[in-house]
Amino acid sequence: MSDRIQALRSRLEAAECDAFLSFAPPTNQYLAGFTGTTSVVIVTPKEALFLCDFRYTEQAADEVRGFTVEQKAGGLQVRAGEQLASLGARCVAFEPGYMTVSELAAVQGAYSGTLKPVSDVISALRMIKDEGEVQRIREAGKLAEGVLEDLVSDLKPGITERELAAEFEYEFKARGARGASFDTIALFGSRSSLPHGQPGDRALRDGDIVLLDFGCRRMGYCSDLTRTYAFGRIPGAWFEEIYELTRTAQLMALEAIRPGMVCSELDAVARSIIADAGHGGHFGHGLGHGVGIEIHELPRLNPESKTVLAPGMIVTVEPGIYLPGRGGVRIEDLVVVTRDGCENLSATPKELRILST
Amino acid sequence: MSDRIQALRSRLEAAECDAFLSFAPPTNQYLAGFTGTTSVVIVTPKEALFLCDFRYTEQAADEVRGFTVEQKAGGLQVRAGEQLASLGARCVAFEPGYMTVSELAAVQGAYSGTLKPVSDVISALRMIKDEGEVQRIREAGKLAEGVLEDLVSDLKPGITERELAAEFEYEFKARGARGASFDTIALFGSRSSLPHGQPGDRALRDGDIVLLDFGCRRMGYCSDLTRTYAFGRIPGAWFEEIYELTRTAQLMALEAIRPGMVCSELDAVARSIIADAGHGGHFGHGLGHGVGIEIHELPRLNPESKTVLAPGMIVTVEPGIYLPGRGGVRIEDLVVVTRDGCENLSATPKELRILST
Repeated sequence: MSDRIQALRSRLEAAECDAFLSFAPPTNQYLAGFTGTTSVVIVTPKEALFLCDFRYTEQAADEVRGFTVEQKAGGLQVRAGEQLASLGARCVAFEPGYMTVSELAAVQGAYSGTLKPVSDVISALRMIKDEGEVQRIREAGKLAEGVLEDLVSDLKPGITERELAAEFEYEFKARGARGASFDTIALFGSRSSLPHGQPGDRALRDGDIVLLDFGCRRMGYCSDLTRTYAFGRIPGAWFEEIYELTRTAQLMALEAIRPGMVCSELDAVARSIIADAGHGGHFGHGLGHGVGIEIHELPRLNPESKTVLAPGMIVTVEPGIYLPGRGGVRIEDLVVVTRDGCENLSATPKELRILST
Repeated sequence: MSDRIQALRSRLEAAECDAFLSFAPPTNQYLAGFTGTTSVVIVTPKEALFLCDFRYTEQAADEVRGFTVEQKAGGLQVRAGEQLASLGARCVAFEPGYMTVSELAAVQGAYSGTLKPVSDVISALRMIKDEGEVQRIREAGKLAEGVLEDLVSDLKPGITERELAAEFEYEFKARGARGASFDTIALFGSRSSLPHGQPGDRALRDGDIVLLDFGCRRMGYCSDLTRTYAFGRIPGAWFEEIYELTRTAQLMALEAIRPGMVCSELDAVARSIIADAGHGGHFGHGLGHGVGIEIHELPRLNPESKTVLAPGMIVTVEPGIYLPGRGGVRIEDLVVVTRDGCENLSATPKELRILST
């Protein structure tokens, strides 16, 4: 943690600020190790303060390292403003993507100095994972892949999307994860064409597509993986076609990853393969996103992203093709950018698999 | 939904605004019926527009009513700003507690009119539930109470906090909920003194306190309930004492609820009973909170809250006493304020129950 605080202090100096303020759980986990939902982190060139209320005093004592912990009553935003005033801070950096307009107003009500939005002051640090973070994400991914294999190898007709999603999430917790890293997506048949569909009461039938997008959160870090299967038999030649096209696009994108590459270029590798085959209009989301403390974090892999890939970034690579009313395919791995390419943290095979009924 | 849009339009007029803008999922569910995570709602005196990207087009077509739905590519915040400009809006209201500083800046980059924070413009509407909302919350609560009864009547020594929490969440989904309304809290023994503790690997033993705080989310609405039990035998006279004190404080608070009462007064009813018995320092959180689309919403029941109770508000009533290192008790019901008091939506008994081992 102390490296992170030092890195933040360098950035504060560069931004001509003499303090940093955060209420955001992911930021406060990254800097202080705290995994609760309500807290304040204040860092100055000499101080590192962590404020929480009664509910979290015991948890903060267990988790927080490198900070002076103080329990405060009443609105933590006002308490934070008072603290900044008493520290004599003149210009306080904050991350505008992690602060609401009302939080900012509450702080400013108790603090007359400057509050300066500094985009990505912590998010950019969080993009580059250290070894401990890579290891945690790798282990979260392994746990989730173990659950996937156990559940798909024993899938029975009649189970509903909702029940299957519930089984994933039960197993995540029972095997030691804190829980799912996002609401598990389990979609059957033509419902697989909903890129962010919610599991419902649709029961599994022979010949269904089975699209599973899931991850768990363990030791503060997320995993993310998607696989698409045929259940019993392939629903048609069209499915095989979009499956193989998605897989090719995904493999080519993985092959292309290099430090120094702009994220939009990587997105274009997969997107052009899909577009050249006439499915450009059926791949409407970005190629991927960073994963870490949050399930979606920097960098974004999409046609607009100008971020340059660097070793230690962990991203998903997840092209998809969705045919409304018929069905969809998405194939997603989680990879860490290395000095000369990437290491795939996901081991589950991607050849089209027909699950036995 | 059309009543809600009319109510919003009246508020816009009162705030001297000619448009309302929201990116917030709870607000957009309330106004438009959409349950996805990324969308834009714009309401003017004559228009009701809903913008989403490719990922949510099918879902929006299924769910959204009363709005013109448009699919947009690229950053939805910039698209929202452009839309406000093309509508000729001069003063746009937004909820400052539901907009980040960076979202606001992105909109303002594409829109040169005034963006005006209007606190609680929608949150205050959401406080008063209509009959359909009360019914959904009642049913979410019943589902969760059914899970509680089934799980505690068959609790076995050796189960871990984490496994028990996983069973709650599995059952929520399997019985038709979208999932848990928050991370299920299951704490055994002295760990029950952590008001917001996370379930861990602690295994259940004879003589343990069992504190369970849980709820599910069903048809877009949350439930919330807490019960505390003794497993096998009562851990000591001190536990019986704080249990009965908590229960008395909870019952007295329920008894006191009336429309017209200020929330801080209701908080004081329970707090003074606990403080008079010498445990004021061991009840460090508010008495309760509103529940609806979000698990925590307005009104807050705490010593600072000046909100006046009104029929249709749904709140938790959840005093607790926590003795660090020994154990804690919390008893929580979910109630709807009526014309002459409240209706308790929770039916699970509150007498001290010793679970059989």
